[in-house]
Amino acid sequence: MIDILGTELPIVQAPMAGVSTPELAAAVSNAGGLGSLGIGANTAEQARAAIIQTRALTERQFNVNVFCHEPAKRDKKREADWLEHLTPLFSDFGADAPAELTEIYQSFLTDEAAFRMLLDERPAIVSFHFGLPSASRIAALRAAGVKTLATATNLAEAQAIEAAGIDGIVAQGIEAGGHRGMFDPEAVDEKLSTFVLTRILVAKTRLPVIAAGGIMDGAGIRAALDLGAVAAQLGTAFVLCPESAANAGYRQNLSSERGSVTRLTAVLSGRPARGIVNRFIEHCEAAGSPLPAPYPLAYDAAKKLHAIAAKSGSNEFAAHWAGQAAALSRELPAGQLVGTLARELHAAGR
Amino acid sequence: MIDILGTELPIVQAPMAGVSTPELAAAVSNAGGLGSLGIGANTAEQARAAIIQTRALTERQFNVNVFCHEPAKRDKKREADWLEHLTPLFSDFGADAPAELTEIYQSFLTDEAAFRMLLDERPAIVSFHFGLPSASRIAALRAAGVKTLATATNLAEAQAIEAAGIDGIVAQGIEAGGHRGMFDPEAVDEKLSTFVLTRILVAKTRLPVIAAGGIMDGAGIRAALDLGAVAAQLGTAFVLCPESAANAGYRQNLSSERGSVTRLTAVLSGRPARGIVNRFIEHCEAAGSPLPAPYPLAYDAAKKLHAIAAKSGSNEFAAHWAGQAAALSRELPAGQLVGTLARELHAAGR
Repeated sequence: MIDILGTELPIVQAPMAGVSTPELAAAVSNAGGLGSLGIGANTAEQARAAIIQTRALTERQFNVNVFCHEPAKRDKKREADWLEHLTPLFSDFGADAPAELTEIYQSFLTDEAAFRMLLDERPAIVSFHFGLPSASRIAALRAAGVKTLATATNLAEAQAIEAAGIDGIVAQGIEAGGHRGMFDPEAVDEKLSTFVLTRILVAKTRLPVIAAGGIMDGAGIRAALDLGAVAAQLGTAFVLCPESAANAGYRQNLSSERGSVTRLTAVLSGRPARGIVNRFIEHCEAAGSPLPAPYPLAYDAAKKLHAIAAKSGSNEFAAHWAGQAAALSRELPAGQLVGTLARELHAAGR
Repeated sequence: MIDILGTELPIVQAPMAGVSTPELAAAVSNAGGLGSLGIGANTAEQARAAIIQTRALTERQFNVNVFCHEPAKRDKKREADWLEHLTPLFSDFGADAPAELTEIYQSFLTDEAAFRMLLDERPAIVSFHFGLPSASRIAALRAAGVKTLATATNLAEAQAIEAAGIDGIVAQGIEAGGHRGMFDPEAVDEKLSTFVLTRILVAKTRLPVIAAGGIMDGAGIRAALDLGAVAAQLGTAFVLCPESAANAGYRQNLSSERGSVTRLTAVLSGRPARGIVNRFIEHCEAAGSPLPAPYPLAYDAAKKLHAIAAKSGSNEFAAHWAGQAAALSRELPAGQLVGTLARELHAAGR
């Protein structure tokens, strides 16, 4: 039994907003891991429905993840420059770039409804990404019997997490797919690997550490445990599961040769995130490109462009998040994948 | 017994040109690991003397590492621009920047004397960094009974190493200190971590893999083995050993708080290498800086500047190479460090 997770297996399915589903989370939890719902892009009522649906599919614990980013600082000039930079991409599909950008979802920091909903539903575990909520919210969740986790990408963030009374740290290495959990996206990023970050946080904090980034199989989980982690969190490994919400284009891209070439980039959403390199990333990172609009404003434009391009069958403008080890992806039902991971884990290092 | 290394322990001391010494290599080999001499910055006769000296200190096998970079393409404009960019730094010490840059050491690719010396001395293992020598040289070394290793930073390099008939691959992750072994320093770097690279090379090549980068202790070595590596190569972990050639300034810097903040940068030598951030790196990476002169031309200027600055007690212009996990450095005699690593390795994962 992994104390902090309440699971048999030291395996967490990463929350992955937009990819996780009640079916995926429940299948992972039922197989002995910790399933997760990423609700950062949902309204409180959508999230409540997902929690209720997950509970209908499993009696076991699962994790609910929220985004704790600073709300976007609006900057008309920067947003207009960004939209202008995207205009030729929209034009290629005979479309106009949007006239303005919208904050497509609310940070948990200011989302009172989501906080109330979580206090009400009391999932076993709530995890925080991009930062931490207020001390009073953390205290309220803990008083309600909810365990908490938070992502750190360096020692300073881990120390802030420890000081805030969080129960465990998700140590997110530079190789991880999707959004990098750094608290301040403008700060210099040391880009510590999963290996180094896990070892440093185990040595220099007292909290249980869950290693995340680049872990795709039981050998990798065993290595994470060797490094002192209590568990490993896997995201990309679960994207091809039939229970995930990944669409056909994402699955095809991830399974292809180019699925193994990823880059950390802020151009899709406004915050650094690792995904499969495509035309959008190359256009937006070309020399002379303006700064992307702040998170999640840039995401509004990228999602609109992708929706238009996808109608023409193009995935060149999609946010197909993937970790550095995406080439090791396997397509299996989630429960079966967890079983395979457990067998590999037990065989590893023997 | 680790077949490819001929050692009891799955531990390689990284070659580290400028830091490795006969005393360090011999102490590591005597303790059951594989000691290494980095001779890339030496003449053939200096290297021969180091090999003879090492043999006087150990009867065991050791590794001799050479640099297989493409010789610098001379470009007067680029070199002049670089020297001009460094002029204010020299001026701060009342000195002039050098009038021109010299290739301060020869690539093994063109160094016939070094090749002849190796064929003559026949160290048990010769390892290649920055690329591979010609097929005929590899064949000659193998025919002389020398085992060969080469560094890969991605799958394509590993496949080239396998195709060339090399005996083993050093999988160098992005967290490693010192020079990144990428064959083509102008190529897009996927920056794969030790964790990911090791797992991918184990899955996709048939050669034994030695994991390198960010490994500082027995738990890390155990993790590397569980990822499928046959051994782990540690560099930064050995810098503080009294047997290393690191000077007092380097030791002090590495032991300090700032020793844990490293960056991968091409400004010191002309090729990407990871070291402790200092004023030289910050000046040379500031927005608007010109391209550094190609390797190893840029190194000529940086070494001259450091020599001048060091007389005033400044380490702000030094190449103090260190990996991302430098904060986990321990100061122990090399033999004792290897013994500690072995004990930790055997205790880990139990």
